[in-house]
This record gives sequence, structure tokens and C-alpha cells, in this order.
Amino acid sequence: MNLEPQWIVGFVDGEGCFFVGINANTTMTQKKQVLPEFVVVQHKRDVSILHALKHHFQCGVVRVNHGDRMCYRVRGHANLMRYILPFFEKHKLKTKKRIDFEKFRDIVILMNKQKHLTAEGIVEIEKITNQMNTKKFKSSVIEPKIESSFD
Amino acid sequence: MNLEPQWIVGFVDGEGCFFVGINANTTMTQKKQVLPEFVVVQHKRDVSILHALKHHFQCGVVRVNHGDRMCYRVRGHANLMRYILPFFEKHKLKTKKRIDFEKFRDIVILMNKQKHLTAEGIVEIEKITNQMNTKKFKSSVIEPKIESSFD
Repeated sequence: MNLEPQWIVGFVDGEGCFFVGINANTTMTQKKQVLPEFVVVQHKRDVSILHALKHHFQCGVVRVNHGDRMCYRVRGHANLMRYILPFFEKHKLKTKKRIDFEKFRDIVILMNKQKHLTAEGIVEIEKITNQMNTKKFKSSVIEPKIESSFD
Repeated sequence: MNLEPQWIVGFVDGEGCFFVGINANTTMTQKKQVLPEFVVVQHKRDVSILHALKHHFQCGVVRVNHGDRMCYRVRGHANLMRYILPFFEKHKLKTKKRIDFEKFRDIVILMNKQKHLTAEGIVEIEKITNQMNTKKFKSSVIEPKIESSFD
């Protein structure tokens, strides 16, 4: 299935999310792990759309989200920097989700400069995250998932 | 705000609904009123998107949906026939929502031929409606809303 860029923008304006999770993680230098992710959730009947998105962006995974719902998900600042950011910089979102995207982008750029490995960087990232509509905080201490850095 | 057709298709694939309500209505010849509607719901912060859709389709209304949510809504088989159907016939939906759209289209075409004013037509329309994912039955007897035929 071929997806035109404007179709993708419209669909993500409706169904996409730009999350930045900040998890307590005792194995990280700053005791916190910053986890940006781009997610699109759909009922499993439209899993082919999620695979088409994955094919278009050349990165990410298609997974079960919850129950009958599947998701296309991209984590890892390298992939986000290389594939996701340039697309949405070129093809602007039309809803207010664009504001979240811009904060998401700023965080991914900071991570690409390794700022999330410094105390000041974490403070800056948390400040931006607090301004996002879609912020998602997990208070529990979780183990890092190696796979999550590369999908 | 200018909306490209493919953006609209993507957004409607995510956020749009094609409903056909069949209401008991004692004032109608067949005692039932068939009410097809195309609806897009958004948080009020993106009401400008709904107005842009209205501007694009040259019909319909922007209304409060529920609480902080607004909707763009087109009712009336004449408007649906003239403005909505041709658009989605030309620019195909990519999700399984297309199947609902096609049933919706069939019903609007039947209504355009005045079939909903005959007992056989109502049976046929109900049969199609039962196959839709987004079917919405209201069992209560309601008064016809004149405005709803023209927005």
C-alpha cells in the first residue's frame, strides 16, 4: 500500500502521538531514562496501515497495543532523528498536535547531542516534557529494555 | 487554512465517522426516519480544522459535540450526495472505514431515489445499516428536526 505524505500527515494529525516518557532507572548515569516515542494506534483490522507506515518510515515496529488494538511505534532518538523528524519538518501537522511535535523534536535533538546524559540536560528535558499535552510519566522503577532503543 | 485532499482522507480515515441512524418517527410515512450523517469530532482547540473542513466541503455545520469536543457534521442526503460522496469516491479511504463509507454511500443513493419513503426501501436500508460497524440505532421516538435536513 502506497501512502502519500499528506495522507500520513492527516492520519497522524488524527491518530498519532508524540510521547516522551521519563522513567526512574537506577542503571542510568542520571537515574532517569528518557524515552521518546512516536506511536500510531489502530484496531487490528487495519494492521496493514501500520505496516505501510513502517514501510514508509523505514524504521519502528508493529506490535499489539492493548486487546484488539495494534500500534506502530518508533523509539530510539537515532531513528526518530533520522526518519521521523525530517518528515514532519517537511510536511507540517495541521492540528495543535504540531506544538507537541515541536517539543518532541526539541527533546530528540537534545538527546542526539547526548544532553540526556547530564543533570542539566535532564532538567531541560523535563521542563519541555511538562509543557506537552501528551506527557506520560511512569513513576515506577523499570529495567531498561534493550530492544526499545533500536526499534 | 488550505486542506489538501489526501490530508482530508488521512484525517477522516483516523477521525471521521459515517453513521446512519434510523429513528422511530410517527410523523413519517413509514414511521421511521433515516438519518445519514458524516461526522468528524475534535477537541475544541482544533475547531479551526473543523471550519476548514466545512469550507472545503461547502456544506455542513460546526457544533459542540460533547463537553470540550466539537464536531463537523453533514446531514441531509442532498448535501451528502452532492458534496461528500463524490469526494470520497474520487479520493478513496485507506482504512477499513472505506467499507462503511461504501454502505453509507449506497444508503444515500437509495434515499436520493426516495426509496426511504417506501416500506421496501426501509427494509433494504436497515439491512445495509446492520452491516455497518458504526451503526447507531436510537430506539426512542423523536420529533423530526427540520434543521437536520439542511445542514
